[in-house]
Amino acid sequence: MTDIQEMTDALIEFRDQRDWEQFHNAKDLALALNIEAAELLELYLWKSPEQANPEKLREELADVIGYALLLAEKLGLDVKEIVMEKIRKNGIKYPVDKSKGNARKYNEL
Amino acid sequence: MTDIQEMTDALIEFRDQRDWEQFHNAKDLALALNIEAAELLELYLWKSPEQANPEKLREELADVIGYALLLAEKLGLDVKEIVMEKIRKNGIKYPVDKSKGNARKYNEL
Amino acid sequence: MTDIQEMTDALIEFRDQRDWEQFHNAKDLALALNIEAAELLELYLWKSPEQANPEKLREELADVIGYALLLAEKLGLDVKEIVMEKIRKNGIKYPVDKSKGNARKYNEL
Amino acid sequence: MTDIQEMTDALIEFRDQRDWEQFHNAKDLALALNIEAAELLELYLWKSPEQANPEKLREELADVIGYALLLAEKLGLDVKEIVMEKIRKNGIKYPVDKSKGNARKYNEL
Repeated sequence: MTDIQEMTDALIEFRDQRDWEQFHNAKDLALALNIEAAELLELYLWKSPEQANPEKLREELADVIGYALLLAEKLGLDVKEIVMEKIRKNGIKYPVDKSKGNARKYNEL
Repeated sequence: MTDIQEMTDALIEFRDQRDWEQFHNAKDLALALNIEAAELLELYLWKSPEQANPEKLREELADVIGYALLLAEKLGLDVKEIVMEKIRKNGIKYPVDKSKGNARKYNEL
Repeated sequence: MTDIQEMTDALIEFRDQRDWEQFHNAKDLALALNIEAAELLELYLWKSPEQANPEKLREELADVIGYALLLAEKLGLDVKEIVMEKIRKNGIKYPVDKSKGNARKYNEL
Repeated sequence: MTDIQEMTDALIEFRDQRDWEQFHNAKDLALALNIEAAELLELYLWKSPEQANPEKLREELADVIGYALLLAEKLGLDVKEIVMEKIRKNGIKYPVDKSKGNARKYNEL
């Protein structure tokens, strides 16, 4: 079993033990993902990148990934497939010769 | 090689081909993660859960997971380890007998 | 008429000319607010605070405030009243002697 | 004095009593705005629009508006001016005849 499947199974089991699937429609899962992303962001508020609390970073990043995996499962998406596909698409949006060493958005290259 | 490592390696390679690590401090990676989470959320704006564009969902969820993996790599975190650890911690915050069938937050159980 | 009322009236008129109130339930308005906040945040991605595009800042901050005003109107809230009330509450959470010169959150003072 | 100025003055006074301007660069103010927007969003998580806690809505929306006003002040922007300007621009992006009764984004009209 892959790591992704192992994590997803554990998340699904946790959800089903608590009879929570009734709340887990895709829109609310996307909301939850955003809320956790902001909790992660809060660890950097008023701080420089190295000042965030390491223990809380572990927890908040885990929460974000957890909801991303639950959303992938709800939508029937293969996580590795969509990530590798997007890397390929980004390769076209951000050709090396135009984007190397600069952080301009693709529509400003 | 695990799926997580395969995806992370591809993301790191993409970043390094473009000499982008100079921009990828943890705080800006957390910002990027939030921005992508909101682009995913936008697919549900004014809509019911089933109305989001499936092709765009694949792309936006992939973007979110991509930045989550880059952030884990930057912070030296093992994705599966932190996710499984958080599921365990959540088990304590959300005991089955208190949380089954309801969506109350842990401080309202 | 106050500035707040003038802006709110213009936003409501814009909404009603387009028959958009059917979409403007409070939850989706909160979603829209978050999406615009992230578009504002994106202007600072990979950048230092002074590098954000000034013209786009005007637009994105206006979008955030626009949805905040629409949400206040939907919820029947008086903007000045809730803001002044929260400043008072924050004064208790952040007493000057404990919070002066530091950015610690109220539960870490 | 306008309501906007009154609220902004109170926010600036609160900030200066605590010597917090040192933390309030525009990028971190935008971060704070996003974090508060997500706290507002959380009041709707797993819920229908009418189920959000009214007392907390007052607080969280006030927090969002507070940071929006602090950011406007930091950037030297006139709130009413930028909001009315954006309503005008949106009128061009969303002509009544094309957008009436539908929620399509401007690039899909």
